Amino acid sequence: MGSKELTPAMVKAAFDELDAERPRTRFTLGITDDVTGLSLPVDEEFDTEPAGVSRAVFYGLGSDGTVSANKATIKIIGDATEQACQGYFVLDSKKAGSTTVSHLRFGPAPIRSTYQIRRAGFLAVHDPGFLDRFDVLDRAGQGAAVLLNTTVPPEQVWAGLPCEAQETLLQRGCHLFVIDAYRLADEHGLGRRINTVMQACFFALSDVLPVDEALTRMKQAVTATWGKRGSEIVRRNTAAIDAAVAALHEIPIPDAVDAVRTRPPAVPADAPDFVRRVTGLLLEGHGDRLPVSAFPPDGTWPTGTSKFEKRAIALDLPIWEPDLCVQCNRCSMICPHTAILTKVFQPEDAAAAPSVFRSTPEGFTPELEGLAFTVQVAPDDCTGCGLCVEVCPAKDRTQPRRKALNLQPAAEHRATEREAFAFYQQIPEVSRARIPRTRSGIALLEPLFEFCGACAGCGETPYLRLLTQLVGDRLLIANATGCSSIYGGNLPTSPYTTDANGRGPAWNNSLFEDNAEFGLGLRLGADTLARRAHTLLDRFAPQLAADLVGELTGPCPSGDDAAIGARREAVTRLRALLAEIDGGDELARCADTLVPRSVWLVGGDGWAYDIGFGGLDHVLASRHDVNVLVLDTEVYSNTGGQQSKATPLGAVAKFASAGKETSKKDLGLLAMSYGHVYVASVAMQSHTSQTLTALQEAESYPGPSIVIAHSPCIAHGYDLVNAPAQQRRAVGSGAWPLFRFDPRRIETGESPLVIDADPVTVPLRNYLEQEARFRMVELADPQRYERLVAAGENAIARRHALYQQLAGIHLPTQED
Amino acid sequence: MGSKELTPAMVKAAFDELDAERPRTRFTLGITDDVTGLSLPVDEEFDTEPAGVSRAVFYGLGSDGTVSANKATIKIIGDATEQACQGYFVLDSKKAGSTTVSHLRFGPAPIRSTYQIRRAGFLAVHDPGFLDRFDVLDRAGQGAAVLLNTTVPPEQVWAGLPCEAQETLLQRGCHLFVIDAYRLADEHGLGRRINTVMQACFFALSDVLPVDEALTRMKQAVTATWGKRGSEIVRRNTAAIDAAVAALHEIPIPDAVDAVRTRPPAVPADAPDFVRRVTGLLLEGHGDRLPVSAFPPDGTWPTGTSKFEKRAIALDLPIWEPDLCVQCNRCSMICPHTAILTKVFQPEDAAAAPSVFRSTPEGFTPELEGLAFTVQVAPDDCTGCGLCVEVCPAKDRTQPRRKALNLQPAAEHRATEREAFAFYQQIPEVSRARIPRTRSGIALLEPLFEFCGACAGCGETPYLRLLTQLVGDRLLIANATGCSSIYGGNLPTSPYTTDANGRGPAWNNSLFEDNAEFGLGLRLGADTLARRAHTLLDRFAPQLAADLVGELTGPCPSGDDAAIGARREAVTRLRALLAEIDGGDELARCADTLVPRSVWLVGGDGWAYDIGFGGLDHVLASRHDVNVLVLDTEVYSNTGGQQSKATPLGAVAKFASAGKETSKKDLGLLAMSYGHVYVASVAMQSHTSQTLTALQEAESYPGPSIVIAHSPCIAHGYDLVNAPAQQRRAVGSGAWPLFRFDPRRIETGESPLVIDADPVTVPLRNYLEQEARFRMVELADPQRYERLVAAGENAIARRHALYQQLAGIHLPTQED
Repeated sequence: MGSKELTPAMVKAAFDELDAERPRTRFTLGITDDVTGLSLPVDEEFDTEPAGVSRAVFYGLGSDGTVSANKATIKIIGDATEQACQGYFVLDSKKAGSTTVSHLRFGPAPIRSTYQIRRAGFLAVHDPGFLDRFDVLDRAGQGAAVLLNTTVPPEQVWAGLPCEAQETLLQRGCHLFVIDAYRLADEHGLGRRINTVMQACFFALSDVLPVDEALTRMKQAVTATWGKRGSEIVRRNTAAIDAAVAALHEIPIPDAVDAVRTRPPAVPADAPDFVRRVTGLLLEGHGDRLPVSAFPPDGTWPTGTSKFEKRAIALDLPIWEPDLCVQCNRCSMICPHTAILTKVFQPEDAAAAPSVFRSTPEGFTPELEGLAFTVQVAPDDCTGCGLCVEVCPAKDRTQPRRKALNLQPAAEHRATEREAFAFYQQIPEVSRARIPRTRSGIALLEPLFEFCGACAGCGETPYLRLLTQLVGDRLLIANATGCSSIYGGNLPTSPYTTDANGRGPAWNNSLFEDNAEFGLGLRLGADTLARRAHTLLDRFAPQLAADLVGELTGPCPSGDDAAIGARREAVTRLRALLAEIDGGDELARCADTLVPRSVWLVGGDGWAYDIGFGGLDHVLASRHDVNVLVLDTEVYSNTGGQQSKATPLGAVAKFASAGKETSKKDLGLLAMSYGHVYVASVAMQSHTSQTLTALQEAESYPGPSIVIAHSPCIAHGYDLVNAPAQQRRAVGSGAWPLFRFDPRRIETGESPLVIDADPVTVPLRNYLEQEARFRMVELADPQRYERLVAAGENAIARRHALYQQLAGIHLPTQED
Repeated sequence: MGSKELTPAMVKAAFDELDAERPRTRFTLGITDDVTGLSLPVDEEFDTEPAGVSRAVFYGLGSDGTVSANKATIKIIGDATEQACQGYFVLDSKKAGSTTVSHLRFGPAPIRSTYQIRRAGFLAVHDPGFLDRFDVLDRAGQGAAVLLNTTVPPEQVWAGLPCEAQETLLQRGCHLFVIDAYRLADEHGLGRRINTVMQACFFALSDVLPVDEALTRMKQAVTATWGKRGSEIVRRNTAAIDAAVAALHEIPIPDAVDAVRTRPPAVPADAPDFVRRVTGLLLEGHGDRLPVSAFPPDGTWPTGTSKFEKRAIALDLPIWEPDLCVQCNRCSMICPHTAILTKVFQPEDAAAAPSVFRSTPEGFTPELEGLAFTVQVAPDDCTGCGLCVEVCPAKDRTQPRRKALNLQPAAEHRATEREAFAFYQQIPEVSRARIPRTRSGIALLEPLFEFCGACAGCGETPYLRLLTQLVGDRLLIANATGCSSIYGGNLPTSPYTTDANGRGPAWNNSLFEDNAEFGLGLRLGADTLARRAHTLLDRFAPQLAADLVGELTGPCPSGDDAAIGARREAVTRLRALLAEIDGGDELARCADTLVPRSVWLVGGDGWAYDIGFGGLDHVLASRHDVNVLVLDTEVYSNTGGQQSKATPLGAVAKFASAGKETSKKDLGLLAMSYGHVYVASVAMQSHTSQTLTALQEAESYPGPSIVIAHSPCIAHGYDLVNAPAQQRRAVGSGAWPLFRFDPRRIETGESPLVIDADPVTVPLRNYLEQEARFRMVELADPQRYERLVAAGENAIARRHALYQQLAGIHLPTQED
């Protein structure tokens, strides 16, 4: 299926056709309300911008520095000229690989335009991929200067453009300039931060300031901003500024379109209808063109759609060496994006595999004997964070730097890995019941959370992927607002997905301040339906086989996939019988609830420790069977790093700029103090087995459970490829306790609390000195740092002594 | 000043005069908005009630059973006849001694009247005091039957009525019936529950049912309701029903008014202007007659007004025997209504005392040598709960049942004690600085919380009175909604009052869900003003005496009344100087904030453990100097006994009708786990000294403090005169821990936690069996009770072991 299959133009045409049938609506800017028919048509070409205003639009890749550079540009122009300036920045809520759009206006009179720029005289595309993903050139005005960052040699640029881009450039008489800013930045030691280079090009191509003056002022700004971080970074940026203008190339525009390809569709042609009709347009940034009738009236949104949002942002990809692999599955267990996958399968299912697909016999797990095993990268979903390579324990003895996974340039491997991955995806999963619940086994369960938009190296997402592997399709999630609600269900795509039967987790996002209550509602709703099903089952029992009724009412423990599979089959049999029974339709509708559901309340520390804490505490104090997963990054990650009550003593955060003065709140102790709540504190990257045990215990505990999960985050200020080692320091120093409190042990006379790590192995400062959030205090005020370290050690000692006491308490059993 | 001084009629006339000047308003039902002039006049006599409807109104005293009896009446009439019935009940939010008004309608057609009855054919006054307090007869219709419960012999009733009552009865041609229901109920072993007697009289005087049928049905209802509590209570009620009708007397109405007195004014004639103009009308139940202009535009409401609301509900009063008194002040310390007062004073201030006023030389405290001492009852504010007599330790050796305080019939002592109390009130207080902060000394500090509307025996109010004694007029209270907001500031009166200088606590009520945040705002506001004052003081310092600036900026610790007095004087001197200084007015305005303020966040367990917990936790996690007082009754007392997270394991409450399954939440542990919060758990009635220490430590601690106060409540189900002994059992069994956690001790290398009571002295069941909330489980399900007792013992053992560990933790000091 070629890329011509369904173009945006075709979608638009389809909607136009739809609109033609509804005479009162038009396909325009603004809301097209074809349901009430009350929306007014908007003239798309109507322009109120005064003359004499320079307009510039910049498309940047999240974290590439485009927004910062444009803010600096505004300051420079505002300081150096009499011009009035305006900057308007559109940021999406995606994490890594998101798009930023900067709208800049300059003019002699104060600027009162409150809307985005429609037609710009200067348009910059800071990532070459944008031209294939969005209609970015649509904002180029007549005769605009278009600046494109591309790694394609100048003489090949025009021919490589998609048909739509060539058309726009020609029709609007644009001037096209290119630069390989990635190469230039890299050559000057700036990594992927191309902002300095692109800013210099803007000044070279626009005439708001004499170029020399602009570049001088840029250099002054660089010194003012970065000077305190040392002269090297200033020198690199200054050199890049000087090199930038020389590296600019103007591309002559031919007289006619001669493209060999069109822009690929936003989603594959074989995607489901809704994805093609609705998701695709949203992905292209044209959600506002959708008429109201396109949206599901009840707010339900299909899952399994993140796979249609390919970002392909990794510069390096992990490449598997089957001969070295020990099949430990650590790589797939740690991957934040489910982009390294491991699978066991029947060897015959790979009989027709393409040559690029590789596998090896499963050789380490007796239960899986006879199956084949593979490790596969999802090349367009990998962010190249390197965590999988970092944790890979298998080394080549002759070349110790060669592991079973090694980062290789993406450009060399993307095509072959795409083909291999496509094959991988259609290999059938083996039955869940066959896979042992061991550390390496669990990683082979099918994940129902994949390809999310979290930051590279995110420490939260592996917990969620793992949860979907453990619980499977019986998972119901109430997700508090925060990072996990953004990468978990930010429109238009969802990383939660379904299995081959079309079953998967149900997910919903609620507010910071009521998510626990909301999740409790999911539990009560499911319980009410299940009670109703049992009542109806009693009523119809005489008309049903006794063994079927027994199967539907007997125990069906979570974690026992065989029992759950049998229950599912019994429900299917029941439905078949009910079709023949008068009045059986109500039971048929709610029979699914006879399969136990697992309700999870998910959120970050801002939710659990702060804004939603009152409700969370209330839910824990109840006896209801809900499970809480706190993805604790110790800071409000999603909103930019404000301190929460989970922020540890001494850490720098917004509202705690000198280092937090108070200790981290002991959420675990509060939960344990109730006595009837299952409580665990886990750290998956360093202590995976304990996490696996805790999550399974929490799910099986028939009352409230809470698992507090240490989640490395870019806000901590270190390269997250080192997160496993750093998490080991957090646990070893006692900064992060590792424990499981299981009220079931009280009944057997054991202590309910098991402390899983002794925090005496690493000095606290060895942990602190690795993270910028702590080190900033040391740099700013060494004395204060010493005081905070000592206070932190005290707080840890106090907590540890208390926990040891809790672990030592022997309680009489009920029978004593 | 006679009672003619200012009658409600005169107040009305004054308002009418006011209204005459504003032609668009009239003094009517409905809101009279004389500020905007937008309200419409209402015809007070306009009546939409259909013919054929019987209307009956009953004025009852809170807890006398009137509302329950009327509900039973509705059921009887609804069951026995074809009549449609309506009951509408007006309850005020006052606790003991409140008024209830029941509006009952019966008629052949469905009743759709949504308003209260204006003119009734039957009007019952269930307490004789109402005739002197409210215009209750105003609701009597033409020819109405008026039933009055009175202890006055029938032949003396007419002559004893106030002029206004005689006038109404005559003008409306009413029939007056009386009964001594108190005597009859008492004779039949029903205590003060007069509802059965009065209900029988209603049936005898109204003709909605044949009397015999009505009384038979009443007896059936009694059996149905009370049968399960045993035959004795049924027998008593049945006998009372039979006796009631015979005890009814009709009082012949003469031809003319011959009263010897008018109804006394609602408030004394020498009350402040606002109290006479506004509070008085509200107290009479005529708040809706006040025009909008009568209310303070900023919502500020005067304090010190509960003293104008005399309820005189005690049947017995504590009478002091100076010869036996050991001046321990336990009586005044435990009194829930500040109705037993103790004072030391200069003997010469009592030179002109009336003979009924008694005093004795202070003889137990060296610092107070030379002063006189007295114990005085406030006879119209005492509820007769008997707690003061219960805790009095001084016994007559020759007559061991005679104590230094003994309950005596109120009727015999009210007049003399009124006179004595009037004298007592005007004796000047000695300086706060002179009174030692000992257990008995603190009770001599002037209370600034008095005569509140709490229930008889309330365990909350002594904490608040004590707080006003300890902190004095520097107290700022943010009060969460709940009992303490009702008795603390329910319109129109406030028990918070001012000293002779007109200074007293400032009090404000906020919501359940934001009171902690609201209180933090009071703190931040006071701090901001104080910072501004210091800034201005620095600016004007060159123009001021150096010693004055020193006095205003030096330390001024709470608890040091001498220092605070000196600071006050310095502020006065400053103000005098500022009057001469250009631009000094801003500092003059905020100079008061140079005297440190003490901010207290007050509320019940519903607030602190449940609805306001999220905010409370957030405030505790801060470093701000706020103090929290949790009046923990372990249940939502104000709204009728719903379980809170403070409700202990095994207690029956609404939503936990079989006994709560989960443990009481450990709020203290959570607060202690922060490490920087002062935390105490106290029980004032049994361990007063520890409470005194805790409140003073909390106030002096320069950060967040929380004091969790065990508060006996009628919801616990036992006679609260036994609360001190029962509280001792609560502490002795470990059900209520007693501790103080002071972070200041960490700095000296001591353990921050001191456990003030060893919970091994009383078996838990000895505590539980005293309270109906626990005993109900034993009665309903003894096995479950045993299980819950065992679980309770386990929870206590676990908590105690944990606390002992906390108390044993020795932390290194910062210097180590």
